[in-house]
Formats: sequence, structure tokens, C-alpha cells
Amino acid sequence: MTINILFSAGGDKWATYEAPLRAALTSKGLNHTLAPDAGPPERVDYIVYAPDSTLQDFAPYRNCKAVLNLWAGVEEIVGNPTLTQPLTRMVDTGLTHGMVEWVTGHVLRHHLGLDRYVGATGGWHDLRVVPPLAKDRPLTILGLGALGAAVAEALVGLGFPITGWSRSPKTLNNVRCLAGDDGLREALSTAEILVLLLPETPDTTNLLNAERLSWLRPGAVVINPGRGPLIDDEALLAALDEGQVGHATLDVFRVEPLPDDHAFWSHPRVTVTPHIASETRPGTACDIIVENILRSENGQPLLHLVDRSAGY
Amino acid sequence: MTINILFSAGGDKWATYEAPLRAALTSKGLNHTLAPDAGPPERVDYIVYAPDSTLQDFAPYRNCKAVLNLWAGVEEIVGNPTLTQPLTRMVDTGLTHGMVEWVTGHVLRHHLGLDRYVGATGGWHDLRVVPPLAKDRPLTILGLGALGAAVAEALVGLGFPITGWSRSPKTLNNVRCLAGDDGLREALSTAEILVLLLPETPDTTNLLNAERLSWLRPGAVVINPGRGPLIDDEALLAALDEGQVGHATLDVFRVEPLPDDHAFWSHPRVTVTPHIASETRPGTACDIIVENILRSENGQPLLHLVDRSAGY
Repeated sequence: MTINILFSAGGDKWATYEAPLRAALTSKGLNHTLAPDAGPPERVDYIVYAPDSTLQDFAPYRNCKAVLNLWAGVEEIVGNPTLTQPLTRMVDTGLTHGMVEWVTGHVLRHHLGLDRYVGATGGWHDLRVVPPLAKDRPLTILGLGALGAAVAEALVGLGFPITGWSRSPKTLNNVRCLAGDDGLREALSTAEILVLLLPETPDTTNLLNAERLSWLRPGAVVINPGRGPLIDDEALLAALDEGQVGHATLDVFRVEPLPDDHAFWSHPRVTVTPHIASETRPGTACDIIVENILRSENGQPLLHLVDRSAGY
Repeated sequence: MTINILFSAGGDKWATYEAPLRAALTSKGLNHTLAPDAGPPERVDYIVYAPDSTLQDFAPYRNCKAVLNLWAGVEEIVGNPTLTQPLTRMVDTGLTHGMVEWVTGHVLRHHLGLDRYVGATGGWHDLRVVPPLAKDRPLTILGLGALGAAVAEALVGLGFPITGWSRSPKTLNNVRCLAGDDGLREALSTAEILVLLLPETPDTTNLLNAERLSWLRPGAVVINPGRGPLIDDEALLAALDEGQVGHATLDVFRVEPLPDDHAFWSHPRVTVTPHIASETRPGTACDIIVENILRSENGQPLLHLVDRSAGY
């Protein structure tokens, strides 16, 4: 039997993913067809998908056993009423590693005050600022899913005291885990560095508004590799201007690409990175896609199945 | 019985260390006198020392049971012929943590290409450079003492493939450990990022000369928080100009403070930090000093005793 797989994603993803996906399918001995045009919709068994695809009406794919998202975020399609097939998120070990490296690097940049030294052309004594040790730098992570938990583990390993916050209560080794509204206030009020790794849902939109920004320690650093709408942009700019937020390093935005005339680009206390923290890595991602196809074919539960009511 | 301790170090170290040292001594129940002037030399039991002290003739301290160095490096006094008393190096857990944080931050700065984003004021697409994962970034550490081993452990934790090199063969978990001349060539030839954490000895002076710099991968990054003389400065500047070395981040120098007219300050591919990577932290360092006084008083072997023939 041949498994008929539709690859439906925008940009140049077909060129990027075709070879590693075929390699992963072949390595598992799966007879397959794989193409960006897989013939009649009713004959498609699986859709490998990214939300920037032109495919937005899933109704004709009535025999499709699963839609396998290439990205971690599913907010752009989870509400699509035609999408009745099982939907999985990408939890790519390569993406997770990349996120851990990006967050750790940007945390240490602020923790060590690295910018002071880049491009300095003299002034030994003025530059002799010894930062506190990580153990004396409280750090809070909002969101304790696969990414938040991996980031927390890495930062615990470097000695930072970590507070984590999530919608529903969780437990992680060596992390002070909080939940709920009271927990959020406590989590924010102890943070010198705040990392946002929440999913985008109606509950998390504008979670970091003016009031909650005021709960942070004065001069706190905000790092957002999660989702743009988690932050009220105008409130953040105001908090930066007042000094309540010392710096913001932002990887995700309400509109992407971030327009060149956006205030974030020119603000001296904002660092913009162009949505690179959570890049899916084709090699490891294709292994996950194929693992889920195998599970489906064998009647086993899918990995990383999206809970439609929670939105992720 | 009262233990008579001489504190002999330059700069403002007495002001920094007096309170934490007294606290550590008192917490262990040790009756003591502690002062920068401890009366007749023959009555001094211990000398808490830094090599920038004016005290350079140890002969009169004939009843002194140990000279306890506040710094990790002892190269400036290990050859002093009057220093016949046991000499200990500082292996401060706070210093070690600080070193791990400094090295990890500067490694990730280069690994992630952070400088590209700092101060960028537009150009989303040009900035979309996704770095390789740490697992694909080979990194070499020269020197596997207390500091090198701790740095290796942290970088292994972040996923970097680590090669370590030391004078005498060592074994560390998840580190490819090499030694000797052949090992040095292999260790350098695989390095995209090189970290120098060797002690300063006659054998290690100018270890990184023109020939050995040519063994690195083209464009490699050199990070030196060890000792200035490990590097032949002129050879490094030439390798930077040729592009054989892509960047050098240097914390230690042959002459400190590094003069404002030194070529390192103005070179666009050199980052200077003013000897802050290996800062002794008074709280944890005083615990180590007092632990060694207790050991000596109880007839136990001293921690971190310097091997005079090896020079560290």
C-alpha cells in the first residue's frame, strides 16, 4: 500500500523539506507518494502543513488521517472550522535546541552586560563592571511547555534561580512553578529577566500589558521568542521610555516581517531578531513527521496532538 | 589559642575582604587576629596573599604554616626563592561560576552571531541568518583544570561537541580529551571556537603562535580568559588581518591595564574585556581560605596546594 502525502506550505519550504522528508520516509520503509500536488483531495492520507500555505479549506480532504504542522504555533489554523482532521504541532528537538541556545545567549548578553564591551576602544577601568553571579539574578519564564521547560532546564544548569508560570499548575525540577492570576503577579514581581514562551490564545493576547509590566522589577529585561501578541506593544514602548523595562529583545511581532518604520527597530533599548529563535530544523522535524505517520498507520496515538479547546 | 593571620594584598582588597573573612573565621569558631599588619613576622601563622602585595620576602615568616593565595594564578610568586612555605591557589566556586558564565556568554555571542542584531535598525530579510545548532559547532578548550573542566561541563550541557586538551592526559565525561603535541594539533584543527584556560608556565608562554594559529579552522574564534602570555600578540593580530582568525575576545593581557593605544582596542575583530572573567568572589573565596586554615590546624592536607615543579 502506498501512503499519499500532500506537502502544503508556503515560501521555499518544499525545496528545503523534500529531501529530508523522503529520506526519513524511506528509512522507515514507508511506500509513499509525496508532492505539493497530490491529486484528488479525497485520496490524500496526510497533509504536511504550514499555516502560510494557500490551502485553507480542509473539507475536501475527507480521508486525511492527520494534518501535521511543521511549526510549533498553530494559532492561525486551530480555529479553521473546515479543519476537522487530527492536527499535530511540531515539537522538533532541533527547534527546541535552537530555542534554548537563542534564549541562553540573549539572557547571558544582558546578564553579563556584553554590549558594553562590543566596540569599546579603550577605558579599562570604566569597563571593569563585574556582574552578579547567575545565582543572584532571578529569572522568570512564562510558559512551561516543551520549549519553556527546556529553556528552564538549561538556565537552571547555569545557576539562575528560575520561576516558571503556566496556565495550569506544573512541576519541574529546581524551578519554582507558579500558576493562575496570583501566581502571575508573583512571577513577574521577582523577575530581573523575563522570558515569554506562552502559546498564542485568546487568554494570552496582551498578557503583558501596562499593569503587568509595572509589576516587574524596575529595569527588568523582557525577552520574547514566543508570540508577538503576548505583548501590548504600546505599553512596552512606554515602559521602555520610563525605564521600567531596561531592554526588550524581541523575536516575534504582530506583523512579520516587522516593517522598517516600526518603533521597535529604532528604539535604543530594543533588539529585534527576525523570528529566528524557533526555527524548525528540517532533519529532526522530518523524523517527527514520519514518526507520527507510522503511529497513525499502526493505530497508536499521535504525538503532540493539538487540544482544540485549549488552542494549542 | 589565637591564630595570627596577616592579610597582605594590594589595592582595596583589605576593605573588600575584611568583613567576609572575619565572618567566615567566626562561623568556624576560630579565635584569630586578622590585620594587614600582624606584628613580628615570626608570629604570623598564615598569610592571606595576593601577588600585588608589597610583601615579596617571605623569609622572615619562618613559623608561617601556609601562604593562601586569593587568586587562581600564582605565576608571579611561584618562583620566589624566599617562599618556602606551602602555597595554595584559589579555587573559588564563585570564581568558577563567574568564569563559566563569562565563557558561555561569549561563546554564544559568536555562535549565534549576536552582534548582527545589536543596534540593527531595519532589514528583516538580511538579518534572517539561522545559525547551526550547537551540536554542529565544534569547540576546543585548552586547559582542563578546575576552570576548564567546569566550562567544558557547561558547554557540553548546551550541546556543543567539546574537545579538551591538557598537558597531562585527563578524562572528562562527554569531552574528547587529548594531550601532548600531537593532541594539540588535532585539538586546534577541529576548533571553530577556541577557549584558552591554561595556566601560565614557561611551557605555555606563546603556546598560540603563528604556526598553531594556522592549524585552526579558517575564521575560528579565539576566546582567552586564561593568561595573556599564552598568545603571541603579533601572530594573533596577523591572523586576524588575514581572516584566519575571525574574532578574538580577550580578557587577559601581557600588560594590564591594557594601554589605550594598544592595537587590540582598535581592531574591529577584537573584543577586550578588562580581566573580569575570573574575578574572585569574596564570600565564597573566604570560605575556602578558612577551610584551609582549619585543615592545617587539624593536620589535614591543604586544598589546592601548588606543585612548585609544575608551576601551578
